Amino acid sequence: MREFFYPNSIAVVGVSPAPDNLGRNIVQNLIEFDFQGILYEVGQRGGILAGRRIYHSVSDIPDRVDLAIILTPARTIPDILEECGQKGIRRAVIESSGFSEYGPQGYHIERQVLTVARKWNIRFIGPNCIGVINMENGLCAPFTPLKCIIEPGDISLISQSGGVGLSFLNLLASENLGLNKFISAGNMLDVGTPELLSYLIEDERTRIICLYLEGIHDGRKLMEIAQRSPKPILAIKANIGTLSREIASSHTVSLSSDDRVVDAAFRQCGIARVRSSTALGSYLKILRLPFMRGDNLAIVSRSGGHAVIAADACEKSGFNLPEFPRAFIQEIEKLLGASVIRLTNPMDLGDRFELETYHRIVEETLRREGVDGLLLLHIYFARTEGKESRELIRSIEKLSAQYNKPVALCVFTDNEEMAYLKRNIGYPIFEMPEEAVRALQLSRDYGRELRSVRAGEPIPSYQVERGPVEELVSNAVQEKRDLLLHEAAAVLGHYSIPVVQGAVARTESEARDSACRMGFPVAIKIISEQISHKSDVGGVQLNLRNESSVQEAFRDMIHRIREAYPGVEIDGVLVQPMVTGGRELILGGRQDDQFGPVVLVGLGGIFVEIFGEVALRVAPFPRREAVAMIGELQGAPILMGARGQIRSDIDAVVEVVLKLSQMLCDFPQIKEIDVNPLRVFPEGKGCTALDTRMIVR
Amino acid sequence: MREFFYPNSIAVVGVSPAPDNLGRNIVQNLIEFDFQGILYEVGQRGGILAGRRIYHSVSDIPDRVDLAIILTPARTIPDILEECGQKGIRRAVIESSGFSEYGPQGYHIERQVLTVARKWNIRFIGPNCIGVINMENGLCAPFTPLKCIIEPGDISLISQSGGVGLSFLNLLASENLGLNKFISAGNMLDVGTPELLSYLIEDERTRIICLYLEGIHDGRKLMEIAQRSPKPILAIKANIGTLSREIASSHTVSLSSDDRVVDAAFRQCGIARVRSSTALGSYLKILRLPFMRGDNLAIVSRSGGHAVIAADACEKSGFNLPEFPRAFIQEIEKLLGASVIRLTNPMDLGDRFELETYHRIVEETLRREGVDGLLLLHIYFARTEGKESRELIRSIEKLSAQYNKPVALCVFTDNEEMAYLKRNIGYPIFEMPEEAVRALQLSRDYGRELRSVRAGEPIPSYQVERGPVEELVSNAVQEKRDLLLHEAAAVLGHYSIPVVQGAVARTESEARDSACRMGFPVAIKIISEQISHKSDVGGVQLNLRNESSVQEAFRDMIHRIREAYPGVEIDGVLVQPMVTGGRELILGGRQDDQFGPVVLVGLGGIFVEIFGEVALRVAPFPRREAVAMIGELQGAPILMGARGQIRSDIDAVVEVVLKLSQMLCDFPQIKEIDVNPLRVFPEGKGCTALDTRMIVR
Repeated sequence: MREFFYPNSIAVVGVSPAPDNLGRNIVQNLIEFDFQGILYEVGQRGGILAGRRIYHSVSDIPDRVDLAIILTPARTIPDILEECGQKGIRRAVIESSGFSEYGPQGYHIERQVLTVARKWNIRFIGPNCIGVINMENGLCAPFTPLKCIIEPGDISLISQSGGVGLSFLNLLASENLGLNKFISAGNMLDVGTPELLSYLIEDERTRIICLYLEGIHDGRKLMEIAQRSPKPILAIKANIGTLSREIASSHTVSLSSDDRVVDAAFRQCGIARVRSSTALGSYLKILRLPFMRGDNLAIVSRSGGHAVIAADACEKSGFNLPEFPRAFIQEIEKLLGASVIRLTNPMDLGDRFELETYHRIVEETLRREGVDGLLLLHIYFARTEGKESRELIRSIEKLSAQYNKPVALCVFTDNEEMAYLKRNIGYPIFEMPEEAVRALQLSRDYGRELRSVRAGEPIPSYQVERGPVEELVSNAVQEKRDLLLHEAAAVLGHYSIPVVQGAVARTESEARDSACRMGFPVAIKIISEQISHKSDVGGVQLNLRNESSVQEAFRDMIHRIREAYPGVEIDGVLVQPMVTGGRELILGGRQDDQFGPVVLVGLGGIFVEIFGEVALRVAPFPRREAVAMIGELQGAPILMGARGQIRSDIDAVVEVVLKLSQMLCDFPQIKEIDVNPLRVFPEGKGCTALDTRMIVR
Repeated sequence: MREFFYPNSIAVVGVSPAPDNLGRNIVQNLIEFDFQGILYEVGQRGGILAGRRIYHSVSDIPDRVDLAIILTPARTIPDILEECGQKGIRRAVIESSGFSEYGPQGYHIERQVLTVARKWNIRFIGPNCIGVINMENGLCAPFTPLKCIIEPGDISLISQSGGVGLSFLNLLASENLGLNKFISAGNMLDVGTPELLSYLIEDERTRIICLYLEGIHDGRKLMEIAQRSPKPILAIKANIGTLSREIASSHTVSLSSDDRVVDAAFRQCGIARVRSSTALGSYLKILRLPFMRGDNLAIVSRSGGHAVIAADACEKSGFNLPEFPRAFIQEIEKLLGASVIRLTNPMDLGDRFELETYHRIVEETLRREGVDGLLLLHIYFARTEGKESRELIRSIEKLSAQYNKPVALCVFTDNEEMAYLKRNIGYPIFEMPEEAVRALQLSRDYGRELRSVRAGEPIPSYQVERGPVEELVSNAVQEKRDLLLHEAAAVLGHYSIPVVQGAVARTESEARDSACRMGFPVAIKIISEQISHKSDVGGVQLNLRNESSVQEAFRDMIHRIREAYPGVEIDGVLVQPMVTGGRELILGGRQDDQFGPVVLVGLGGIFVEIFGEVALRVAPFPRREAVAMIGELQGAPILMGARGQIRSDIDAVVEVVLKLSQMLCDFPQIKEIDVNPLRVFPEGKGCTALDTRMIVR
């Protein structure tokens, strides 16, 4: 990979002296960025540009060439690549478009390109991209003029889209953040995201990595690579919904993924999923500072109003504003003397501004153990307080590093001063209290995530007799059918997942007899292939406490449903011992195309049916993730025993989740599994699957 | 009010030649903004400043003074105001702090100030503020230097906080939006938000009004004023949670409100509630364009990636991207010739950029009936396409006005060009696709809200025999107790709200007899003052179908609860006819301190208990609002019949909501009312209150 970024000599192919020639721009960029190597120009019609001869073909170049940057019509690429191969060039960046993103004809050309590349062992980036940049050696290969916008730094970007990549470069510029390497990856016909990411993780001068993705080819590989990264990885993943699907496929040939799986996968491997360009800016700024390691924030402000806004934002972001101890307040009162100020947290310092005092307050606050970070809201006018304010900012930079805690600095001043600060001061500056608090939240959450990913908790392993399961699954696969209910229940059994038994009754008396055998109370449920939402049609009767109740309920139910839905075929009712108490959950899993086995859990009933809310993880995963899954459900407080509810046996559910996870990894032939519902009882009382379904492939 | 903004002469009180004197800044601002009137300086110690004599007191000024701008220590204000009164000054802006926001002593001074002001009939803004600005006549009274940041325009701001007001002025500057009037209202000891708002609504040169509020004194008055406004009103209301409460009270003496009531009230009176400074910028930009009148958006982009991001954002914002008809596409193909582009919606025009073609595409798109607005994503480099791009932007401004549809323009270019655009082009420019789409959403939603507020739908009125209700309520008030269950039920009855009857049973046989009288099936519910969540302790048994079931259930229940909760006193059980089917809602209402009667509705059970989710309105309100309340519940799809659920009798619930609304307006003595649960049956089958509770004051 290194050869793409540190070539000693490059050939730009597709150059002509014509004013609208895009290859010219590439040459111009390389010159303006002062490329530290030899530059050759190649163009069919020859000529002269920038004091250099334009060679008719790469084969005419008299010296060795390490990298070809190609921008010619798609149909010409296979031949050009052939020439490159013959010339001994082993790396290429193909910026041309008109390939599979354009239609079947383009797809055909792609195949030819691949054939030539493999023949000569050429690795290439693109096609349909705007190229690569390495700020270390002036390798700036995009065909758009870039001189004025990029500063060198330690952030590297991989973008599937050229346009979005460019606007991220603009974003870096406007926040005065520096770039190390940039790769517009385009169709990724050869070199793909995992390989590029892997390289940037190793790359010495890259400190933060950003990805813009529209599609994910091999999610599991991406996860494995990211998991090993000691550097923060931020990713914007677009092409989420149905509206963007078509344009994404025509743009970078990207398929859409199940977005919930992407979410889970990123989190599990320590990639911070960034939701918008604004959030990207916030991340890039706050990640320059130490991570926020807890929930305790101190706010120091010159303006009461901004403190109010910041406090509201803190509440939303789940921060505490711990009170300062009396002694500390007294210390500050001494510093300031009596004044119109408010010495709580948020601390409102009013109009007072003395550099020395501010410095002391920030330092004293950071020094305290119960403070994980500080938000400093500073309003000033350059004309009167410019010099001291800039000094304050510089001193904060040192304090933040010294105490290894983030000081998010939010500045309110006129635009010219703001521009000055961004140009001249390396410290990140926020312009709105809400953004600063949000950035601290991102820092706290991402830091927490990284710590737990890097903790490398082991994945639990359960003793399972695999032979019988293998047989059940294989039989179904061979017979091209799904597992029958009793088979599916048996599989659960082999994984020690508890399942309730029930009896099918076709008549009133059968129902009564089954009930007597089981013992009262019982429940009866309608069985009909046409009825999926049993309770909505009155197809569930619970709590039947004696024979006559069962018989009446049976008669009633059949009669009512027949009357209301004359066409429906009724196969009888399922009689089950009344499983009283507890809450219903839905558990499941499937094999995802991009990420492999995934497991999901949701609250039963309306929660999943109406809100479609589930928590999801890519299997296998450690116990901590299973616990987290349950915790992130909106309805989790119900299970946790909030507001006088009885706490459910979360541990039992966690076990089932982990066992399902193992099952899907053990048996990739199980394409989909549903445990719906899983009834979970009060703490210590376990849980039971009431119904299950398994689909094989 | 006008006298505050158009004085012919002003006196700045608190001026001295000392370099750190804040009054100097006021004088400087007035000079730099070229105030169109006569300016006098007043300061205890006299002297000379800016070529003017500093008078020792306002009484020394030889001419008439219309407005005093005062910035002296709090304790001096009563005397100064007395002097102003004697001098015949009838308007003042008091910028000093140190009043009730500072403590009891300050509160005392405030009372004195009010006394003097009333004696002389002086109206004043403040104290604890940074003053007023009127860009029409150069009246710029803040004590912070402002020259370089403000441009004249048609947006006016009222801010309770000076600091936040200043940062909004910065925001206007950075988006190149112009200001008309600015008021920092501070403690609002005399002139308050409603009066200021009322004035700005009348004010000829103000087109958009922004409020920053930390507290709301008379919410109902604010609503009445806003409701009549033909101008958009945007409001940021801070001081929402518990973390900001204390700092807000010390900052502008603001009490916190029930934030859900604020939300509802703003919506009902056509104030757009703005959630952050970022959103404020988006609103201010998009409101310069025509309102987005529907969900159909066209996206035209030069970059596929930005189109993908925009499409994702559209999905989130509930926009449709309707396909263009074949004929239209062919028309465009003719314009462009064959090229690497994607002619769907989003339309990806690729690298192609010809001004004339772009103009035509935008115009043809806007002309179409099925398109409510357009998002144009334009990426360019100033060096090569600057001139034409600027022309394009100017031409878009005309097209948007001509077709009365918003064209949100999102530009990606280098920072210098962006700064040029903002300085020189009046058209609003977005820098991120997500922000542009979000702004279009704000425009659509706010436009819709305003149309419905202005439609002035009548408020339904129900025939109610008020005498008996009056009596029930008065009795309870006199006896200092809440209404008894049967009284509350009677009140509901008088408002024709259906209520189920039940019987209290203290023994097994009483329960059985009651059940027999009612007919089976029945439900029994534990009655105990110590048990509020009956079902959590097993205190509810449903669907009891015969005598023995009732008796068993009674015995079981009493036994189980006695065993589990030995200390609990059990008063018996409530036997009710089994109300089968349907869904449970919770309805209620109360008298809010700031906004008067409010009515709320939520889905029963865990929805309200765990999520605390309710929809709320300030009473009275038209039928449309009652319908909207139900629709905005997260669980609404359940009632609406989503996913095979049975549609509930929404109309019946709407009637109950409207009747409760009238009840709370008819009887302000009813402090609080709960109808919990209200059981609502399938469409056409009505609803029934199963329990109710009324508290009087």
